[in-house]
Amino acid sequence: MAPKLGIIAGGGDLPGLVAAACRAQGRPFHILALSGHADPRVIGDEAPQDWVRLGEAGTGFERLRRAGVAEVVMIGPVRRPSILELAPDFRTARFFARVGLKALGDDGLLRAVAAELEGEGFKVVGVDEVLSGCLAIPGPYGNLSPDEQAGADIARGVQVARGLGALDVGQAVVVQQGIVLGIEAVEGTDNLLRRCAPLAREGLGGVLVKMRKPGQDRRIDLPTIGLATLREASAAGLRGIAVEAGGALVLDRDSMAAEADRLGLFVVGVESPQC
Amino acid sequence: MAPKLGIIAGGGDLPGLVAAACRAQGRPFHILALSGHADPRVIGDEAPQDWVRLGEAGTGFERLRRAGVAEVVMIGPVRRPSILELAPDFRTARFFARVGLKALGDDGLLRAVAAELEGEGFKVVGVDEVLSGCLAIPGPYGNLSPDEQAGADIARGVQVARGLGALDVGQAVVVQQGIVLGIEAVEGTDNLLRRCAPLAREGLGGVLVKMRKPGQDRRIDLPTIGLATLREASAAGLRGIAVEAGGALVLDRDSMAAEADRLGLFVVGVESPQC
Repeated sequence: MAPKLGIIAGGGDLPGLVAAACRAQGRPFHILALSGHADPRVIGDEAPQDWVRLGEAGTGFERLRRAGVAEVVMIGPVRRPSILELAPDFRTARFFARVGLKALGDDGLLRAVAAELEGEGFKVVGVDEVLSGCLAIPGPYGNLSPDEQAGADIARGVQVARGLGALDVGQAVVVQQGIVLGIEAVEGTDNLLRRCAPLAREGLGGVLVKMRKPGQDRRIDLPTIGLATLREASAAGLRGIAVEAGGALVLDRDSMAAEADRLGLFVVGVESPQC
Repeated sequence: MAPKLGIIAGGGDLPGLVAAACRAQGRPFHILALSGHADPRVIGDEAPQDWVRLGEAGTGFERLRRAGVAEVVMIGPVRRPSILELAPDFRTARFFARVGLKALGDDGLLRAVAAELEGEGFKVVGVDEVLSGCLAIPGPYGNLSPDEQAGADIARGVQVARGLGALDVGQAVVVQQGIVLGIEAVEGTDNLLRRCAPLAREGLGGVLVKMRKPGQDRRIDLPTIGLATLREASAAGLRGIAVEAGGALVLDRDSMAAEADRLGLFVVGVESPQC
């Protein structure tokens, strides 16, 4: 039987999906929910859980150990913490004293946290080990595939997204007829799509491309799309979404294919040029 | 006496500033204003002018020639044209047939237009030749300079902006404590600043960085800041603005320094690491 899984839970629905997958697999788990980020409705009352602030690393490690956790997964976005929220306990302060705070990209920080967990004796695993059905497959999800123009926009999007990722910033771009309409930084993909809507020229198509950063640790923060992403892409007038096959999460695969067909969009997994 | 200057005018105040500079220098000029992009209030009634659609390259060349223009400057942003607007005349169609429309970055297109003008016998000059006082100087404009944190954010911003520029996308980024809050694509710097405002953590500073793209032709589309940029940066809670010394335009230098001091922001020209 798989060892007990610690689920370090940020925002959104993903932590709930991971917990559900553990239940379905009969795997024991314990949730360490991050106050102010994790959604209590997603975590639910039933699941074994502890809540800590981001700054309480010492307490967090202790809770995970007390729960008998051997492996941990970090899942769900964590907004930038406020200073108050971060008020570090002794263990957290020691961490920041060592890694520093300056010039850490998003991933730099997450990698440091993963290393810290490993240093404490936990094995950090990727969410795809638990949600294996969610890892993006190559090729189209629904009935539609990109045409030639969309293919060219995807190629340009992959190029820009990979270039950005190499700088450890965003993972998502919107491209229409070769023009990059928008680039994601910390605002999130839904906000990116909303602000691209008025910039897109009607009838000219356009694609959302989400790629893993080059060298990105598969255990942390994989680019993710769900039904909400698909609906925002449709509202923005785009033709479809391309994600990195094997390097992104596509939630709720069957519903995704059905909804893509209903909206007349494509969702496609593409190979990364230099993985 | 300097040859007659053709001012191919896009949006904003810059075309008016160039015309004013010509008047002040006693240099003859003729404005070729782009309908739907150039602002009639900025162009005014007095200046010698013709108006053409973006798709009317043939007419545009003919008008410039008839006005006796030898050198041209392209100035002021041009929003992405609608299809109707672009309905190409024969000369424009020939241009697009040759350069193609696919996968052209913003600069790719402008470079192709500049080459086309040169092919027609016009000399394309940079706006800095006319507005020499506007090219960003190294060092601070007002009384304030970046402190250590702001300096680190500027360094990160320069790194990301140069990386982006190498992909021929935006020229502007907003950085706060090492985190890239926002990246400009086609939405423009004012929109970038507005959407970063709610993402910035109060009291943590943050900077706007605008850099020329690596290898960018100095004659086209230099990154530009003006009083409006400064006020939006202040409204977004930023500490200041850094632009590339010798590679960006700072409009209205004296007012800029005064307004920066009044708002308590810095405006600084920084060297590019690898020009």
